[in-house]
Amino acid sequence: MRSNGRQRFVLCPGEPAGIGPDLLIELFRRGQTADLLVLADPDMLLARSRLLGVGLNVAVLTPDEPLPGPGRLAILPIPLGTPARPGEPDPNHAAGLLQALDTACALCLAGQAQGLITGPLHKAAINQAGIAFTGHTEYLARRCQAVQPVMLLACPGLRVALVTTHLSLREVPDHITAERLARVLRTIWQDCGRYFALAGPAIAVCGLNPHAGEQGCLGVEEETVIQPVLDSLAAQGMAMSGPYPADTAFTEDMRRRFDVFVCMYHDQGLPVLKALGFHQAVNVTLGLPIIRTSVDHGTALSLAGSGRADPASLAAAVRMARDMAGIRGNASP
Amino acid sequence: MRSNGRQRFVLCPGEPAGIGPDLLIELFRRGQTADLLVLADPDMLLARSRLLGVGLNVAVLTPDEPLPGPGRLAILPIPLGTPARPGEPDPNHAAGLLQALDTACALCLAGQAQGLITGPLHKAAINQAGIAFTGHTEYLARRCQAVQPVMLLACPGLRVALVTTHLSLREVPDHITAERLARVLRTIWQDCGRYFALAGPAIAVCGLNPHAGEQGCLGVEEETVIQPVLDSLAAQGMAMSGPYPADTAFTEDMRRRFDVFVCMYHDQGLPVLKALGFHQAVNVTLGLPIIRTSVDHGTALSLAGSGRADPASLAAAVRMARDMAGIRGNASP
Repeated sequence: MRSNGRQRFVLCPGEPAGIGPDLLIELFRRGQTADLLVLADPDMLLARSRLLGVGLNVAVLTPDEPLPGPGRLAILPIPLGTPARPGEPDPNHAAGLLQALDTACALCLAGQAQGLITGPLHKAAINQAGIAFTGHTEYLARRCQAVQPVMLLACPGLRVALVTTHLSLREVPDHITAERLARVLRTIWQDCGRYFALAGPAIAVCGLNPHAGEQGCLGVEEETVIQPVLDSLAAQGMAMSGPYPADTAFTEDMRRRFDVFVCMYHDQGLPVLKALGFHQAVNVTLGLPIIRTSVDHGTALSLAGSGRADPASLAAAVRMARDMAGIRGNASP
Repeated sequence: MRSNGRQRFVLCPGEPAGIGPDLLIELFRRGQTADLLVLADPDMLLARSRLLGVGLNVAVLTPDEPLPGPGRLAILPIPLGTPARPGEPDPNHAAGLLQALDTACALCLAGQAQGLITGPLHKAAINQAGIAFTGHTEYLARRCQAVQPVMLLACPGLRVALVTTHLSLREVPDHITAERLARVLRTIWQDCGRYFALAGPAIAVCGLNPHAGEQGCLGVEEETVIQPVLDSLAAQGMAMSGPYPADTAFTEDMRRRFDVFVCMYHDQGLPVLKALGFHQAVNVTLGLPIIRTSVDHGTALSLAGSGRADPASLAAAVRMARDMAGIRGNASP
């Protein structure tokens, strides 16, 4: 099912002052963009390619036109209005960047694209434009009317999913509710089958507190929230393991045993994943009606236009979207 | 300065129902205990060695007697009162286990030992005996009248120090005060020189919130507490870097650049350290007037007496204490 001519994926390169456009141009140079439809400003990409010294041959399309095949980068134009300067995010670009996401969602929901790949956005620039924006995951969930998006990061040998994402640490404990946790775990269970071909996945769930609360000595949420949810899901045929102390959850032995590790908050699991697999990691949003993958890094403004940005994560995000679409496609009647 | 005949270290093997005694017996079998004075119940150790099938030759000493040299395990007897059963912690042993720690502290403070190495204790069993006990680090700090102990874990290529240790996650933010943070960072700076021969160490300090607060979007403690403390210490000649987002703080490049990573709480940094170096990691308490190292693992009750416990962390803890004493000794006039 990989890149068979009938499949195509939409790609939004993200903040034009950052490295997103650079990474896309590098993938084009390597011949890895034949099944991609890029939602971006063609002038911005051509200007960046000149800066990088890469010959970029673009095909500006409408949504209904077929992809042009290898050698040309297919672009559905979303004008930014003003030129982009590497390293200097411009709030005036915010509307165009979000319009690209909206269009991408619409194409995926209509079945005109099999998945969405996103580069990094610069949250502050969008907020400066007067648009409340906490991240792709939350934005796409609203566009797709999804109740419970789940952020999962994957690198070779490790998948980490998060129960909460972009909250201050102080806000985390009150957001670990039985309702949210059950929804998140159910989504992970279902989407592991749908997208990773893991039926009956081995899922390890971390505690909220150090030592998973150590029998209530270091916090009670393991006993009052997490264990009851695990018991309830097990009774419904979704047996998961835990709650595990996070500090010893990611040893080599544990990484071999489990397909997915569920962490209660951002910095409980992502430091491990990025220590082990930085630049090979992919951010996947589960719980959406569409396939969406993303790079695991930020805009790296200071590297934009330098030719030194590493496209490994974007390349991995594209591969992951293809793989997920292939597994979903094979499972369909 | 390593094991030169005049140096000796006190070792408390920890919970007798756990693997602490097993690990010590294995170090003896490997001939790695010649400079150790063990504070424990000799009958307990002899019984465990019979269970493990290891011939243990003990020398029961008073504090003033010299070590017997290789081939015999030097023991300063601290009776437990009743026999220890592997896998079954007994609250009746709590008093003896804490007396061993008290005696060990006194010997170190009096200069009769150059450092203390501890095996794992079972906190619940001590608390069941009616003795409030949250961990070795806090207990030893009180015994040594140290204001600010700092827990640091080290494995090959990575040192992680913690600003807070055994708190529920909910309690963490209010404990990240300017006073505590400044004390902890100052202790790390000073003890890096004293014990690791790192003068002007490269120290990376993580933020409290995800993305280090992202300019206040995801929490304010970076701006209200952490950055001001870093500025103040830099003005006093103790320049440290940060606050860094924890998720990208531990990449290979960062691990090469920094000698010590300071994390705000337990599960921000220890999952990384134990993923990279479990079974080779050592727990060091800085900020005490004595050298103290420890294993990085728990009692593993189910493995006690099985012969399958891995002594790598205890061996590393003994080596680390010797190294620290050597560096401290070389620096003395």
